Amino acid sequence: MLYLIGLGLSYKSDITVRGLEAVKQCSRVYLEHYTSILMAASQEELEQFYGKTVILADRELVESGSDEILRDADREDVAFLVVGDPFGATTHTDLVLRAKKAGIAVETIHNASVMNAVGACGLQLYNFGQTISMVFFTDSWKPDSWYDKIWENRKIGLHTLVLLDIKVKEQSIENMARGRLIYEPPRYMSISQCCEQLLEIEEKRHDQAYTPDTPAVAISRLGSASQTFKSGTIRELAEYDCGEPLHSLVILGRQCHELELEYLLEFAEDREKFRTDVSKDQQFFKPAPWVPPQQDADED
Amino acid sequence: MLYLIGLGLSYKSDITVRGLEAVKQCSRVYLEHYTSILMAASQEELEQFYGKTVILADRELVESGSDEILRDADREDVAFLVVGDPFGATTHTDLVLRAKKAGIAVETIHNASVMNAVGACGLQLYNFGQTISMVFFTDSWKPDSWYDKIWENRKIGLHTLVLLDIKVKEQSIENMARGRLIYEPPRYMSISQCCEQLLEIEEKRHDQAYTPDTPAVAISRLGSASQTFKSGTIRELAEYDCGEPLHSLVILGRQCHELELEYLLEFAEDREKFRTDVSKDQQFFKPAPWVPPQQDADED
Repeated sequence: MLYLIGLGLSYKSDITVRGLEAVKQCSRVYLEHYTSILMAASQEELEQFYGKTVILADRELVESGSDEILRDADREDVAFLVVGDPFGATTHTDLVLRAKKAGIAVETIHNASVMNAVGACGLQLYNFGQTISMVFFTDSWKPDSWYDKIWENRKIGLHTLVLLDIKVKEQSIENMARGRLIYEPPRYMSISQCCEQLLEIEEKRHDQAYTPDTPAVAISRLGSASQTFKSGTIRELAEYDCGEPLHSLVILGRQCHELELEYLLEFAEDREKFRTDVSKDQQFFKPAPWVPPQQDADED
Repeated sequence: MLYLIGLGLSYKSDITVRGLEAVKQCSRVYLEHYTSILMAASQEELEQFYGKTVILADRELVESGSDEILRDADREDVAFLVVGDPFGATTHTDLVLRAKKAGIAVETIHNASVMNAVGACGLQLYNFGQTISMVFFTDSWKPDSWYDKIWENRKIGLHTLVLLDIKVKEQSIENMARGRLIYEPPRYMSISQCCEQLLEIEEKRHDQAYTPDTPAVAISRLGSASQTFKSGTIRELAEYDCGEPLHSLVILGRQCHELELEYLLEFAEDREKFRTDVSKDQQFFKPAPWVPPQQDADED
């Protein structure tokens, strides 16, 4: 059996009781170690907690070395641990398909991930649109396809969850070119850097998917003891010192009801200003209601 | 301290290790009992597992009787258990606000909910739009504001998660009128009823937010031992016998990549037909790319 087990957001004890029971009976335990990190537990602490050796699985192992992960899993139990929930990233779907093709049974033990725990900021999950990822810009590489997605979401009043880039086990271009297996220290994007990149692209595209005055919520260390929320405009959050990783951001859509707003105000520096910013931004794509597009009468 | 603790989807052991530790130290333990149910554990089993009395909290107690829930929570630990994750429903946000106003510390222990575990069907969570709820229609009450939301989602290529109505502790109109506290047996909407209602409203509105041939995925008993997925068109799923509750449905958007489709094909009765249905439906809102709407140059 291959167990895909979500570890939740932060503590070693965020694993479910059922997940822990499964880990304890596995002969090999892998920890996916490139799409996220567990904030409050090291590999050693996990090993002690499980009473098992934990093998760190980098992207290469998961994407190219899945035969090794799945080895003997038709006769033994193998655990593949994922921070958050196992179905956040495409490559794990791929691992399941490979297991099924090899005749290996798969069981998933779900857990919280940023995709649902983001509700802790007070905004209803029902009103989120598509999620986007913000990568570290370089001088020559500034991908901005996410800009249209924010626009699409906001045009119909929806919030946008922005996942911030993390770089774990990355090589410098020089080391890569020389074939040296030397890795850079891990990097985690901050809220301010994310907001600066948002502002940079809006300045370039000028299509007003959002403005510097669009309200947003900064979410830091979600699910950990030092979890922090901060409400402010994108311009304000570009100056915000968010502290230790991990971070994510929600760009508000129009659909923010009084009870949700009341919750967000708790995290604002200047409550009245934030209330005004939200109210102004709600007028942004007016007239508010979605206008039915012209129909293509070509189907059914 | 007020602990808001997610129970996850199905088993009593789906609670996290940290959540269980918190429950064990609480002097009162409430279980929210009207927005969802835990599929594989009864109240008695939970009480035995926790070593605590579990008080069932209906809508009335949570919305009007929160003083009782919060009683002495500034000096004692009180647990409020929620199936899935605590931040799925608005009323729990309200409970947190009330606690904060009363000077009571609040800690949330997150867990999986259908909002993220739905990724187990193989579709990427990134590409889901707003979530809708489908309520039981009556002869005189057929709310269909969700129809526009499906359209908005599908117009920009996104999938729509449909949460199906459950009725727990409902009174008949007659008993309500006579003030008799007699409750109807619980009811859980089936996939086929949901799909019939979808077809009924499309027939009435005829705006082609979807057609009877639009592909969807039926999700039954997510996270439980008898979890089942079924891929088919809305018309096909209107005939599908989905078995015991709970159920939900995903209506596909255009953004379905080859790896995701491969996953969905595993759940289709006729793989080639489903592949063709998806491909036809992907042409539905053409031209495919979103056309930028006219700008209102009235802000910023």
